[in-house]
Amino acid sequence: AALAVVSAQAKPLSQEDISVAEVLRDRALESSDAYSLVESLTVEVGPRRAGTEGDRRAVAWALQKMKTLGFDRVYTEQIDVKRWHRGHAHAEVVAPFPQPLVVSSLGYSVPTPEGGLTAEIVEFADVEALTKASAKKVKGKIVFINRRMERARTGEGYGPAVQGRSKGMRIAAEKGAVALLLRSVGTDSDRFAHTGMMSIEGVENPVPALALSAPDANLLEAMLKRGKPVEVKLDVDNELLADGPSFNVIGEITGREKPEEVMIIGAHLDSWDEGTGALDDGAGVAIVLETARLIAELPSRPRRTLRVVLFGAEEIGLVGAKQYVEAHRSELDNIIAVSESDFGAGKVWRFDTRLPENKFDIADQMMQLLAPLGIERGNNNSHGGPDGSVFVAQGVPAFGLYQDGTDYFDFHHTPNDTLDKVDPENLKQNVAAWVVMSFLVAEMEGDLGRVPTEH
Amino acid sequence: AALAVVSAQAKPLSQEDISVAEVLRDRALESSDAYSLVESLTVEVGPRRAGTEGDRRAVAWALQKMKTLGFDRVYTEQIDVKRWHRGHAHAEVVAPFPQPLVVSSLGYSVPTPEGGLTAEIVEFADVEALTKASAKKVKGKIVFINRRMERARTGEGYGPAVQGRSKGMRIAAEKGAVALLLRSVGTDSDRFAHTGMMSIEGVENPVPALALSAPDANLLEAMLKRGKPVEVKLDVDNELLADGPSFNVIGEITGREKPEEVMIIGAHLDSWDEGTGALDDGAGVAIVLETARLIAELPSRPRRTLRVVLFGAEEIGLVGAKQYVEAHRSELDNIIAVSESDFGAGKVWRFDTRLPENKFDIADQMMQLLAPLGIERGNNNSHGGPDGSVFVAQGVPAFGLYQDGTDYFDFHHTPNDTLDKVDPENLKQNVAAWVVMSFLVAEMEGDLGRVPTEH
Ligand SMILES: [Zn+2]
Ligand SMILES: [Zn+2]
Ligand SMILES: [Zn+2]
Ligand SMILES: [Zn+2]
Repeated sequence: AALAVVSAQAKPLSQEDISVAEVLRDRALESSDAYSLVESLTVEVGPRRAGTEGDRRAVAWALQKMKTLGFDRVYTEQIDVKRWHRGHAHAEVVAPFPQPLVVSSLGYSVPTPEGGLTAEIVEFADVEALTKASAKKVKGKIVFINRRMERARTGEGYGPAVQGRSKGMRIAAEKGAVALLLRSVGTDSDRFAHTGMMSIEGVENPVPALALSAPDANLLEAMLKRGKPVEVKLDVDNELLADGPSFNVIGEITGREKPEEVMIIGAHLDSWDEGTGALDDGAGVAIVLETARLIAELPSRPRRTLRVVLFGAEEIGLVGAKQYVEAHRSELDNIIAVSESDFGAGKVWRFDTRLPENKFDIADQMMQLLAPLGIERGNNNSHGGPDGSVFVAQGVPAFGLYQDGTDYFDFHHTPNDTLDKVDPENLKQNVAAWVVMSFLVAEMEGDLGRVPTEH
Repeated sequence: AALAVVSAQAKPLSQEDISVAEVLRDRALESSDAYSLVESLTVEVGPRRAGTEGDRRAVAWALQKMKTLGFDRVYTEQIDVKRWHRGHAHAEVVAPFPQPLVVSSLGYSVPTPEGGLTAEIVEFADVEALTKASAKKVKGKIVFINRRMERARTGEGYGPAVQGRSKGMRIAAEKGAVALLLRSVGTDSDRFAHTGMMSIEGVENPVPALALSAPDANLLEAMLKRGKPVEVKLDVDNELLADGPSFNVIGEITGREKPEEVMIIGAHLDSWDEGTGALDDGAGVAIVLETARLIAELPSRPRRTLRVVLFGAEEIGLVGAKQYVEAHRSELDNIIAVSESDFGAGKVWRFDTRLPENKFDIADQMMQLLAPLGIERGNNNSHGGPDGSVFVAQGVPAFGLYQDGTDYFDFHHTPNDTLDKVDPENLKQNVAAWVVMSFLVAEMEGDLGRVPTEH
């Protein structure tokens, strides 16, 4: 019994704090406010690609919402973003079987020449096969990368599949291709193309790059199997614009004892421009805002500052997070931990961390409150979310409340990312988990140390 | 025992015929040829709206396929169709929450004035509510009909929901509206608008008419709930063209004893123009062609002629069927029965008929072979399919192999009606049922009489 007492006393989270967290958790399960927030963002703002009018409206929306939610301080920090205009993108097979194709320009795709371009397509199983191909095979052709993505609860099919999107245009252009057609990085079989970011830095002669919907990639595949050359016409009207401003939008609940120590919880405010960004990342925005609102309603502030950062320009290369870390480099040691919600609106099923080994007991204590939500303890490899990973790379500890992403990539970066895909009950469960984690980190005694930095 | 023998002899279908039908059924279950046909039609032709280039290619495709499938006679019969060019259709909310909407022109929608039109929307629960509304409420506005369709295996939600599409524009125009926006007649929540036919005959001042995807109808609904006027801009560029030709494509297996008596099995060859028409009605085309091929491979022809009619221009008002019946009015008495497959590619689960009461025993005998396919006996109210109904109205008996349509209206008339929605195994089961029904009607002694005509 004496040993048990010692052991209980050694635990970093006090029973009182855990009791408060439990109350917060149960309030979260009763509240539909997170759903109202994502409804508001999708209805009143909708698409909000970084640097567009929609983005500006989203920033205004976030400031206005934060001001009503009980934050002590609400402000923006400007960032610089590469801007780009999406014009039309038409594609059609002209031979041997003329029919239209559904496509979407990848982010920053250059236009075709006025009047379009027509060329034969050449198929590659994946970006590795393209890399190995001779320039002779590719020159003057439209490269068609036809790699399928695997469905998984973890979304782990994304990493390998997204290589074609991020690197395909560069490699195709270097080998003299006239354009890239990419089977969408997605798990659905709906006639939506999945847009997304590609790397354009330093590409000397970029060529148009378009995602094909899965049924359209199937069509090209079936035509090619018939053995005759398949010719496709592309007509794309995009434009690279001058750099412009966007913003990280920030709300703080100021710590009562150690206001300079900060727990950052985040999501990204920007979205792609064809859907209304309900899953990516309206849900995340709603989850972290509602988490903060619940904590702000407590009779006293937590020990530390809880800072909600709605990152700008995540979709175009973690721009808001990178510029945030750059601007706040001298304060990084005071960021006690980071976590971002950016994987849709599925139920949280796993609790990952990135902590020094001697801090695992904190996570174990949190599990007391997370397990009843159907959450299991995961691994210590969390990257804290896409924007969070920029902090983790600097040694900031992270938490990861892993959502069920089984159908996330059915909708990701398509016009079909809309509010109806968000289950209000799942959102409550998310907030319940987030408020436990966020409150306990902001309130706990001691700190979480640093994690090894990545180079 | 004597009674049993008499009873057996009184049955209209002989045991030998039933045995042959059973062999055909089991061959159908082994063959993937129907899937190959719908694959070929969607890959090599794709969209084939009546009167377009795609329609012409579909007619050539059908003739060429029929010539390889063992028909005794293959021919076309010309029909006249109203032609129409689908241009772009853009819609966006301009106030209070600017964002784009996903829409599709309904068939024969007129364009907007050059540069588009902008007006406030006025919402109606359904076409009945619009009918009752004062012209004052509607004049100068964009009518928004916001009726949801119910999901059902039978598809019975379609009839009531489609009223808004068929009549909405006419009523809106008569009351002085400047356009119609219709919540899509569909059961999905994907960001696809469902196009389709509307009645334009005799509308003096037609206005642009567009379907909204379900998520976009939700958006308008949510904006209107906020109480401020919602203004929408439409920019539509369609064109009514001169009438032109299309074709019914017909293949016959000539009867060995009564070639002048004909069982018609059909599907429609045309499709809407945004998908590849895999479910509507590529699957039906494949099912009836494969049914005929299996029967053509028997060592002898059935007693009667089996005529496969691939109707043209079904989508724009059963045009091919109506002109067929008009052109063949004097031969209608020789059409012993009709049946059409036009409800996608789900499993057949119910066997309906439209027979004189004294012919029910034929259907009962067919059930011996259909029941093992998971098919139950339905009612005697079959209309023989959309095109089939034109024959039934003239007294021709009909059979209806009712498919499971639970998800049919998720895809119907959208870009998402593509090959991947067709389950090859379900198609085999369909052909198995069709070949039983088709062979036994073509082969049986006696006839099916006439059914009461409709007026
Ligand atoms: Zn995201
Ligand atoms: Zn994203
Ligand atoms: Zn149809
Ligand atoms: Zn149809």
